[in-house]
Amino acid sequence: MGTQNVEMNRRVTLVSRPAGIAQAANFAIDRIAVPPLGEGELRIANRFLSVDPAMRGWIADAGNYSDPVPIGGVMRSLAVGEITESRHPDWREGQIVLGWFGWQEIATVGPDAIVCEVSQPDLSPSLALGVLGINGVTALLALTMVGEPKAGDTLVVSTAGGSVGSAVGQIGSMLGCRTVGIAGGPTKVHRCVEYFGFDAAIDYKAEGLDEALVKACPDGVDIYFDNTSGAVSDAVLPQLAMHARVVNCGTAAIDRWDPWPSGPRVERHLLVKRARMQGFVVFDHFDRWEESVATLAQWVREGKLRYSEEMLDGLEMCPDALAGLYRGENAGKRVIRL
Amino acid sequence: MGTQNVEMNRRVTLVSRPAGIAQAANFAIDRIAVPPLGEGELRIANRFLSVDPAMRGWIADAGNYSDPVPIGGVMRSLAVGEITESRHPDWREGQIVLGWFGWQEIATVGPDAIVCEVSQPDLSPSLALGVLGINGVTALLALTMVGEPKAGDTLVVSTAGGSVGSAVGQIGSMLGCRTVGIAGGPTKVHRCVEYFGFDAAIDYKAEGLDEALVKACPDGVDIYFDNTSGAVSDAVLPQLAMHARVVNCGTAAIDRWDPWPSGPRVERHLLVKRARMQGFVVFDHFDRWEESVATLAQWVREGKLRYSEEMLDGLEMCPDALAGLYRGENAGKRVIRL
Repeated sequence: MGTQNVEMNRRVTLVSRPAGIAQAANFAIDRIAVPPLGEGELRIANRFLSVDPAMRGWIADAGNYSDPVPIGGVMRSLAVGEITESRHPDWREGQIVLGWFGWQEIATVGPDAIVCEVSQPDLSPSLALGVLGINGVTALLALTMVGEPKAGDTLVVSTAGGSVGSAVGQIGSMLGCRTVGIAGGPTKVHRCVEYFGFDAAIDYKAEGLDEALVKACPDGVDIYFDNTSGAVSDAVLPQLAMHARVVNCGTAAIDRWDPWPSGPRVERHLLVKRARMQGFVVFDHFDRWEESVATLAQWVREGKLRYSEEMLDGLEMCPDALAGLYRGENAGKRVIRL
Repeated sequence: MGTQNVEMNRRVTLVSRPAGIAQAANFAIDRIAVPPLGEGELRIANRFLSVDPAMRGWIADAGNYSDPVPIGGVMRSLAVGEITESRHPDWREGQIVLGWFGWQEIATVGPDAIVCEVSQPDLSPSLALGVLGINGVTALLALTMVGEPKAGDTLVVSTAGGSVGSAVGQIGSMLGCRTVGIAGGPTKVHRCVEYFGFDAAIDYKAEGLDEALVKACPDGVDIYFDNTSGAVSDAVLPQLAMHARVVNCGTAAIDRWDPWPSGPRVERHLLVKRARMQGFVVFDHFDRWEESVATLAQWVREGKLRYSEEMLDGLEMCPDALAGLYRGENAGKRVIRL
């Protein structure tokens, strides 16, 4: 065939491994020919690419739950795309799917890369990357499976204005918890209460975090949903109530794990309060993905579950998008629209 | 009545609150008249007094699971004694009971002070303070309720030669775990393997704890039964296997919690390994005490559960006995015989 007919794919690759958070310079955008479609493979035209705090860990060399993205490889990401060609019997052209399609325009993948079909046609398919995807499903499953909320529990959430935290707070409220959000700055704190319906919110950047926590949680903290680790967690742990549950869902406040950072020891709190800390990674629970999305979608339709989405246009927005999350500049779940 | 007929009680009282571990000088022995027995009360002649690492916390001013022993008060302790007089319908003279009778010769108590009757007449009643009491019941319930052992699990135990640790190892072996003990010095390490039947034992005082752990636990650590906190725990946490359980049962390696000590952060280990850390205090589980003692006693009779007991004679041994535990000088569960 003539070169004028070769379909080209633009993609974002990792060109160097950062010590801390990946910056724009750690990525490059290139353009290569789309390979022929093998037996059993699918061609996906990506529509929306995800930008997630967890990507920091997927890039890191060690100490994570998945192999690091190789140097020269396409940046790993969830994406929503349309199947444009299928050589697999279970999938057909035209289906909109969520999967591990990476930061690129066109993905050529096996069926294992697909997480599920995007099955809420009345809602934006981009939500499959946020409130109806990794963020919402994490909030729902981590809170219910590890946090074990009961009506009347005091639930404290770090990065409460974020994509996961805001959903945790709203789901906690639906389940009868008293919700206390922790966020950085008066704008986010205001939004936690006014938009996401937290019963109280605390600005961790202001003076007096310890006192604010005691005041907001007079009976102690029954559930701490921790997206940050760091100084915020160190302030919450001494306030745990008896038989408290701490959900370790993320460590956004820690820039790097090499050298490994220290903090106040937690063992004594856990012992004295008969409390529990437990890690949660949503990718262990794909078997509950579709039922979870259906639940979340119904809440969205009923107006019970609000969300924020920040849409950036074009593949060239990718390289700096992750560092921007860690600079705190995003206004909601960050999605790249192609 | 004439003074010559007044029964006298010798008792060990707390005279000053230590910053760290209570030393002999923090206690005094006095002698006072036994009070008249009120309606509903019991008189107990103590036979065996317990000396437990946890007493350090019962003396501390804050951050514990019970109110601190008051200055001038009798040192709180479990003890085994004989009821010599009863004005309570549920209890009668001559019964041997375990309870909160304190470091003294004669206790005058209400029925709430009694934990249970000592019900294994073929075994020494002193065992109700050790392998058939707080230590054995802690080992059995903490391991099964929090550790959730499965056949084939690798179980690591700190202070493996101690009263709790040695029972944890043996019970773990019975449940099909591969057991690895951590203890201080070659004598204790040898005893862990030869007497208590650990599959392997590691001397944390020797060089190369990290390497020894990797070698002893090639598939990682499924359960870490932690009696120590501190440097030993810091070495074990990075070796956790997926879905590991850490039982926080004691913090013997930490001298004081004021100022609060720091250590390597655990959150990332828990997240990456989807692991759990949980505190356990046996006093929450008195409802399972008698069934647990019956199980443990049967294992003792069958020779499946070995123990060490170190008997010290006389009330005057009490004041230095606790500090001696922390000096590591005891050879088994320390009991004061009156």
